[in-house]
Amino acid sequence: MTSSGPIEIVATRGGAVESRHRVHAVVAGPDGDLVSVHGEAGLVAFPRSSLKALQALPFVETGAADRFACSPAELALACASHEGEDMHADAVSAWLARMGLDPSALACGPQWPRREADMARMIREGRQPGRVHNNCSGKHAGMLATALHMGEPIEGYAGREHPVQRRVFDAVSAMTGMDLSGAPVGIDGCSAPNPALPLGVMAVAAARFAEADPARLGDVRAAACRRLQAAMADAPEMVGGTDRVDTDLIRAFAGRVFSKTGAEGVYFIYMTEKRLGAVLKAEDGAPRASAAAVWNILAELGLLDGEAEAALRRHCRPEIRNWDGLVTGRVAEASEV
Amino acid sequence: MTSSGPIEIVATRGGAVESRHRVHAVVAGPDGDLVSVHGEAGLVAFPRSSLKALQALPFVETGAADRFACSPAELALACASHEGEDMHADAVSAWLARMGLDPSALACGPQWPRREADMARMIREGRQPGRVHNNCSGKHAGMLATALHMGEPIEGYAGREHPVQRRVFDAVSAMTGMDLSGAPVGIDGCSAPNPALPLGVMAVAAARFAEADPARLGDVRAAACRRLQAAMADAPEMVGGTDRVDTDLIRAFAGRVFSKTGAEGVYFIYMTEKRLGAVLKAEDGAPRASAAAVWNILAELGLLDGEAEAALRRHCRPEIRNWDGLVTGRVAEASEV
Repeated sequence: MTSSGPIEIVATRGGAVESRHRVHAVVAGPDGDLVSVHGEAGLVAFPRSSLKALQALPFVETGAADRFACSPAELALACASHEGEDMHADAVSAWLARMGLDPSALACGPQWPRREADMARMIREGRQPGRVHNNCSGKHAGMLATALHMGEPIEGYAGREHPVQRRVFDAVSAMTGMDLSGAPVGIDGCSAPNPALPLGVMAVAAARFAEADPARLGDVRAAACRRLQAAMADAPEMVGGTDRVDTDLIRAFAGRVFSKTGAEGVYFIYMTEKRLGAVLKAEDGAPRASAAAVWNILAELGLLDGEAEAALRRHCRPEIRNWDGLVTGRVAEASEV
Repeated sequence: MTSSGPIEIVATRGGAVESRHRVHAVVAGPDGDLVSVHGEAGLVAFPRSSLKALQALPFVETGAADRFACSPAELALACASHEGEDMHADAVSAWLARMGLDPSALACGPQWPRREADMARMIREGRQPGRVHNNCSGKHAGMLATALHMGEPIEGYAGREHPVQRRVFDAVSAMTGMDLSGAPVGIDGCSAPNPALPLGVMAVAAARFAEADPARLGDVRAAACRRLQAAMADAPEMVGGTDRVDTDLIRAFAGRVFSKTGAEGVYFIYMTEKRLGAVLKAEDGAPRASAAAVWNILAELGLLDGEAEAALRRHCRPEIRNWDGLVTGRVAEASEV
């Protein structure tokens, strides 16, 4: 195992460092072995939306995804933090309708589309954002599908003690190998519960999801992991959206590597070929810092080949532009400045 | 002098710490004495928009403000990072028109109003944001006024070597007592140049602006400091806008304390009665962290009385709410959690 301090990411202006970030990152294997640690492997953090692929496991494992004949795009949406583009909102609406539900069943609150052009178009058309536009609406549709399939009340499905969430927490507990009964539980941006976990524990869970080994996880769970991976590889535009890190990364790696961002500067990286997982957390919660550190982790593991580098440079080593479009600085690892 | 480590600000979720920030802060007097230091007084940072009151000094000192019969609201706008509300955009447009200019003379780029409701209204009305909506348009109007008054070309007025900017840099150099010829210069969000300076040096300059002593600064500069202070106290809504820290702080203190935020987590605080200045910089650039630390500095100096506390709590100790309006956490100093 290699270890170092946190990955130092800086934002520059006029060639000088303007702001500094520290990103803790852990790369681990499925046996619980830590491959590399930057900063503190024991740092407890909320995975937020980075956890979504694991949270989607019961939706597949219970048979709910099959019951409602869910497409790869819908499975990808269950793992997504989408941008609320029409393709996302329309897909979630259609999926809900097929289950006999309307968007009012979603516990996630209304959220404007992330991209200014989409938001502006809705405003011009006199529309308000709906719950389907919430970046987590696909995850919630998957949770509703699970409740319906299992004959559980859909009311209160986002509550920690509802069977749907208990099943999600059990899956996370099994994948991490950690008893979650004492873990802090936060309420996410979409009102679903989210456990805080040490980075090292999350990285091992990510490796197990990436490996998807029936001998380790059992046939049903291993198949669910592979099916969710295949869905994300098939419909990467549903995992994020236009001009998003996760979408561009998944597309560039074509099934060999997956990533999932979470609020407050978190990333999960699933490396299927290498059977490794990585978790990153910007100490201060800055998304620009965690996105930049994804580049470092991929490079460290020899994964930053030409195609990935081309796809990710604008996300991970972005220029900073001002209101008139002038380049005023950049985001980089500290040693690059 | 008291000294400590950086002020530690945290964002919580579900009662646990989710993200951590370090805010460096220096309180100084006009003689160059440091009253209190949190973190590194020597940390070099770009003051960004926090510098605006000092950048506005030549606009008053040259007689440009009198030449164009500028109102207190216009003087306040010259010191402002406004929200692009109608009151701001209309005031800057009228001011430019009185000088025979239209908004295309502004070097600052077009920027949507900060508040969603203002932006949505403009979109519904089929309007695009203009340069007058840029949060710095008042500063730029003051710079244009200076160029016109001094008979200098308005073309290129935002360039570092234009007489307008040379005069601004000279004023900052005199107020800080620091030769700026070797200082890093960044291009600001509004395309104007901005020097990077040590926090301690900036805090002393802030104290000198607050003190406004003719014996120290000369009659003209001291009068300019007082006139800008009076203007900000008279029209605090022009310094920031609806629901902004600076506006609410200036209003609560009624001329005894002024603050000015800057991008990437910077604050200047001018304490006129106490003849002190303070500068804060969130190491990672997070505005939520620097706003929270303003509360600590005011408390440390015995300034957080009932009225100020009531006005500032929602800015400096905010609840964090999700898309459905649920409170999911809060921002606080680490020891409060």
